[in-house]
Amino acid sequence: MPRPPEPRTLADLKAVVGDGAWLDSGDDLTAFTTDFRRLYHGATPLVVLPRSVDEVAQIMRICSRDELAVVPHGGNTSYCGAATPDESGSQIVLSMRRLNRIRHLDADNYSMIVEAGCTLAEAQAAARTQARLFPLSLGSEGTAQIGGNLSTNAGGTAVLRYGMMRDLVFGLEVVLADGRVMSGLNSLRKDNTGYDVKSLFIGAEGTLGVITAASLKLYPQPADTATALAGVDSPQRALELLAHLRGAAGEQLTTFELMPRIAVELTVRHIRAVANPLDQGAAWYLLIELTSPSPRAGLATLLADELQEAAVRATIKDASIATSLAQSQAMWKLRESVPEAQRHHGASLKHDISVPVSIIPKLIEGGSELVRRLVPEGEIVAYGHMGDGNLHFNVSQKPGAPAAAFLERGAKLEAAMFDLVGGLGGSISAEHGIGRLKAAQFAERADPVELSVMRVLKRALDPKGILNPGKVLM
Amino acid sequence: MPRPPEPRTLADLKAVVGDGAWLDSGDDLTAFTTDFRRLYHGATPLVVLPRSVDEVAQIMRICSRDELAVVPHGGNTSYCGAATPDESGSQIVLSMRRLNRIRHLDADNYSMIVEAGCTLAEAQAAARTQARLFPLSLGSEGTAQIGGNLSTNAGGTAVLRYGMMRDLVFGLEVVLADGRVMSGLNSLRKDNTGYDVKSLFIGAEGTLGVITAASLKLYPQPADTATALAGVDSPQRALELLAHLRGAAGEQLTTFELMPRIAVELTVRHIRAVANPLDQGAAWYLLIELTSPSPRAGLATLLADELQEAAVRATIKDASIATSLAQSQAMWKLRESVPEAQRHHGASLKHDISVPVSIIPKLIEGGSELVRRLVPEGEIVAYGHMGDGNLHFNVSQKPGAPAAAFLERGAKLEAAMFDLVGGLGGSISAEHGIGRLKAAQFAERADPVELSVMRVLKRALDPKGILNPGKVLM
Repeated sequence: MPRPPEPRTLADLKAVVGDGAWLDSGDDLTAFTTDFRRLYHGATPLVVLPRSVDEVAQIMRICSRDELAVVPHGGNTSYCGAATPDESGSQIVLSMRRLNRIRHLDADNYSMIVEAGCTLAEAQAAARTQARLFPLSLGSEGTAQIGGNLSTNAGGTAVLRYGMMRDLVFGLEVVLADGRVMSGLNSLRKDNTGYDVKSLFIGAEGTLGVITAASLKLYPQPADTATALAGVDSPQRALELLAHLRGAAGEQLTTFELMPRIAVELTVRHIRAVANPLDQGAAWYLLIELTSPSPRAGLATLLADELQEAAVRATIKDASIATSLAQSQAMWKLRESVPEAQRHHGASLKHDISVPVSIIPKLIEGGSELVRRLVPEGEIVAYGHMGDGNLHFNVSQKPGAPAAAFLERGAKLEAAMFDLVGGLGGSISAEHGIGRLKAAQFAERADPVELSVMRVLKRALDPKGILNPGKVLM
Repeated sequence: MPRPPEPRTLADLKAVVGDGAWLDSGDDLTAFTTDFRRLYHGATPLVVLPRSVDEVAQIMRICSRDELAVVPHGGNTSYCGAATPDESGSQIVLSMRRLNRIRHLDADNYSMIVEAGCTLAEAQAAARTQARLFPLSLGSEGTAQIGGNLSTNAGGTAVLRYGMMRDLVFGLEVVLADGRVMSGLNSLRKDNTGYDVKSLFIGAEGTLGVITAASLKLYPQPADTATALAGVDSPQRALELLAHLRGAAGEQLTTFELMPRIAVELTVRHIRAVANPLDQGAAWYLLIELTSPSPRAGLATLLADELQEAAVRATIKDASIATSLAQSQAMWKLRESVPEAQRHHGASLKHDISVPVSIIPKLIEGGSELVRRLVPEGEIVAYGHMGDGNLHFNVSQKPGAPAAAFLERGAKLEAAMFDLVGGLGGSISAEHGIGRLKAAQFAERADPVELSVMRVLKRALDPKGILNPGKVLM
């Protein structure tokens, strides 16, 4: 068990940020020592809230000097405990929330430089003031911070068109483990000078360096949007529709989300003011959105034609196209409320997994069989980002089933699910990362050579092992 | 000076690949020891041409055991000498040309797995057989190999829409310096398990590992294309047109290439069957292409409307829209023949540089002033990928000017040009890489902290320094 830090170290750290910018006791600490899903309840002797990159650099120099572990902390919306200190009381928390300026916005270059502590919603809003879109979009965007989005390579509901967070970055400013500042904030679409160092820090969950700012890619704001909900009989039909829409609409296809009937039913039941706009019930529902920066794109007509043709081909059973912003928002609410509806319904076992898009039907078939066999107390609620090959293959507790018995099945189901995913060439963590929650599973299942390369990189960049120890790599 | 390898090492290497798969003498060696631009004339005791990943792994194990330097070699179209052994005769050449299978193509997942020795044209053709597009496109695509495209993070004429080679990769198979094989050939749009190791090898020019295969992203084949040539008075006007087109056409804008009048004049003069389709002369010309996977996108109308409006606003002086495939091909030939026309015209000084797109007019202004001041024997031929902020800011020898005096100015101009680019937040190598040619300039001009991180990564992954020594990092 590592020792708690020396009083002198803590005093030096407090002196860097000054009064009012640190916490070492009281209830407020809990917000920094408990993760979003309340899986972990850690302890920390100190939370520092620096206001500048220079302060972050000073903090890291002190921590490096005294070999003190640092847990970078953003909006605390990680699903895997990546931003939570362990229980030893030997790790300080480095909150980025006050490092939250928009430093620069270049509309003509479609780029902006923002600090790590900006929330995703603030970054989106800054882009909007210049008629630009920062396209990353996810449920927790009002709380999640850009630094956390970078450190977990966040995904969300527009990945199909715009990619993951890694795809939206021109350059980074990073404070290294020893306190040196790497200034890589270029805003260039093309730069082939040396290794792609920035990509290493994206998705590293603060284990290789502390990201303090990023130069991000912007896009034109959509001026035309068409949203629809469609019902299909099977994931295979959904795949056929996806192929047709990709051919007809290309990159204009921004969202293609899959929900099973039960997800729609639970959401209609548990969430106020949510309704199913389709007349006919369907086994599976698809939320589809096309967007274009051109007001003349004619997307509603395009989508209506495609869905009409799909109905004639019997690819889809039914569909509803939003004819107002309110209708579109209602469709989105149906999709976005699924996690909350699941929480109301009872306990759940979660799997954030991905496979090649073409394999989604096989994944659903194989995964469903596993659940039926291994978790008799469970109902399958497998939904998510079908266009990206990413499902949240969750299992909800059946009403009345004993919670303890249900939750006990989790470990066995997870192992079987990960075996299945591995056999299908998929990933055991599509968008939520590894954090602490999946570190053991990851160590066991990763390609051993790739894992050893990751360990070599970790030792090279953080030789004292002070950056978020116990996360990603065990 | 490193020593030539021991005879036993060479014998072991020959035994791995077998007779007919190695060269150690004769004229054929020259193809492997001279670079595309004939800047370097190296020497090598052995060229090996393995047929399988296992043979590459055995080769690296032997080279690691005996500390023998290895120069990976693709289509040999590098502009920076990245694939050429040095003059010492102590480095073997590892040709990837026989490792050239298409291993797998998944049309529904828009992905394919190809080996490093496939030419880019072969990879494009394989995708086309399944109505898919592999979008990387560049002049040397008939010769350049996928492994080289990956190792130099190749760019080309469709980056505006599809990104660089790095953006087109799902996963890699890499043989490490010690001969272990890293199997990362997933075909997943989302995979957040650990560090982004693959990105490190892309653009590393064979200095961190030997890429043997890649899983690549595919797109729908375009079913509608509109091509135009437009004349504008200034780069500022070109920038305005770019902003309008991006707003109107979004990602459908695939190509936005800038050429100065002299580039068009030289090409019309030196290249057979090339004509300027515009009636009025213009100071600058733009090659513009929109593409869509939908046959109903109406791109010709969209482009005609936008150019008409731009003419009314006086953003452009003149424009011609291709009304046949032949006309479109003629416009492309005008653009693609610029480098060849420059070679016919005389010696040239080349700068492959980038800045934020919004800064292109400033770059052209500042760069032109430098050329006028420092190279009185030169004519500016600054052309290239304006939509990406990347220009080939080249200078041609004026007819009749003494070549020696002209070429002597090169070093001073390059230093001044790189200073200018640095001051504008740009890159001294936008798409051609560092290789041997720019290693010294790069070492001098890179952010020192980022450079030290790169050196740490190099030592971590290639502790014996046997992978393409002298390239990228000095």
